Amino acid sequence: MLVKSKIKYIQSLSHKKFRDEYGAFVIEGPKIVEEFIHQSPERVLEVYSLVNWLKEQKSLLKKLGENQVIEIDQSQLERISAMPAPNQVVAVIKKDKELFSPPATDKISIALDGIQDPGNLGTIIRTADWFGITDIYCSENSADVYNNKVVQSSMGSLLRVKVHYLDLVKLLGENKVPVFAATLDGKDIRETISGKTTGLIIIGNESKGVRKELLRLEVTQIRIPSFGNAESLNAAVATAIILSKIKL
Amino acid sequence: MLVKSKIKYIQSLSHKKFRDEYGAFVIEGPKIVEEFIHQSPERVLEVYSLVNWLKEQKSLLKKLGENQVIEIDQSQLERISAMPAPNQVVAVIKKDKELFSPPATDKISIALDGIQDPGNLGTIIRTADWFGITDIYCSENSADVYNNKVVQSSMGSLLRVKVHYLDLVKLLGENKVPVFAATLDGKDIRETISGKTTGLIIIGNESKGVRKELLRLEVTQIRIPSFGNAESLNAAVATAIILSKIKL
Repeated sequence: MLVKSKIKYIQSLSHKKFRDEYGAFVIEGPKIVEEFIHQSPERVLEVYSLVNWLKEQKSLLKKLGENQVIEIDQSQLERISAMPAPNQVVAVIKKDKELFSPPATDKISIALDGIQDPGNLGTIIRTADWFGITDIYCSENSADVYNNKVVQSSMGSLLRVKVHYLDLVKLLGENKVPVFAATLDGKDIRETISGKTTGLIIIGNESKGVRKELLRLEVTQIRIPSFGNAESLNAAVATAIILSKIKL
Repeated sequence: MLVKSKIKYIQSLSHKKFRDEYGAFVIEGPKIVEEFIHQSPERVLEVYSLVNWLKEQKSLLKKLGENQVIEIDQSQLERISAMPAPNQVVAVIKKDKELFSPPATDKISIALDGIQDPGNLGTIIRTADWFGITDIYCSENSADVYNNKVVQSSMGSLLRVKVHYLDLVKLLGENKVPVFAATLDGKDIRETISGKTTGLIIIGNESKGVRKELLRLEVTQIRIPSFGNAESLNAAVATAIILSKIKL
């Protein structure tokens, strides 16, 4: 049964304030819910689903306690979903305790300086996962990783990529790996980052780029060369091009 | 003055049916509107703006006739805008007469097989523009290039990239350049497309990929190698990685 107070609770998780207070967030749709149950059943607090998906996933759902799985109908699904077209199942997930680790000296890591668009952040997390990046460092004014749109566009990569929120100026002060910042007038990425195995790559805000405050520190500015007339690239696209230049 | 019938007309342009009927679409915000007036004033039918922007852009607006520029107030702006946070100015633009040209034999072109998400299409157009791609061929079931979200996320690149809608099976039948299709089990892009100067790259639908019907034709399947565990990449990100592997 889905009581009224529960509906309110789930709806409240669309606000960062309540996600912080309850230490939980929401995921939606069969694909990502199945991935979370498979890989981290201990983090799945409750699953709310139409009867069909429950029947299909009977054996997977054995990983959860019986009282954690709640059958709902279409109108209830529409009330608890944050999506324009709800897709069968909604789950409440326990937020991860993020253990801070500084950028590793044998890896490539990413820092995001004020990424605002949740879709961009989610796509960056998914792309990072594709390239085997395990840590993303976000300035405190970046979009919240547990925002519904971030979660949905990251497509389960949240399970594998750790996202840290912190003061990037401080991070760079204590950091031990070479730092590269994507700007429009840095050095060509073909001459700077090809084949690198260590480093922290900073991607800046969608309209303002990387803060001057950071560029003044020990940072190599890098640029994706242009062959046309677009003024700039989408932040997730820029991240992808830089990672592919490093790895491929 | 902004009469009621005009408000209805502008609002109707959020539907493809009316964009087709009137041969027009809407752009919003100072940046893209300024770019259109600069580069294609003859396509700008009408500009609706708050007084501040009109004052700032006095000299630019001389490129338009006086009766094409209409001062509006905030509440009128909110009525004609399709954005959650309208930004000063809205303009109605004449759709381009797209003259069809087949994929050029000395260029890289892109084909999109059923891209559904308007944000993805816009980002692909912007990325293509960055890499100097001039032609994109879309299957008829792809998102409409004049959709508000496509226009806004393409950031003015619509002025430079031609987007053709057609039957891709037919296009491939008559086509004279090598064709590459992005799939999850093709040949590594490092061995197939690096440094190519001719070719048509097919990117598939966000969840279903490139249709089998197309893969059965004379097509080389290519794959972006993965270093992590994400199941797939966002379509715009995949396009960006492939183009960067070709050009960089």
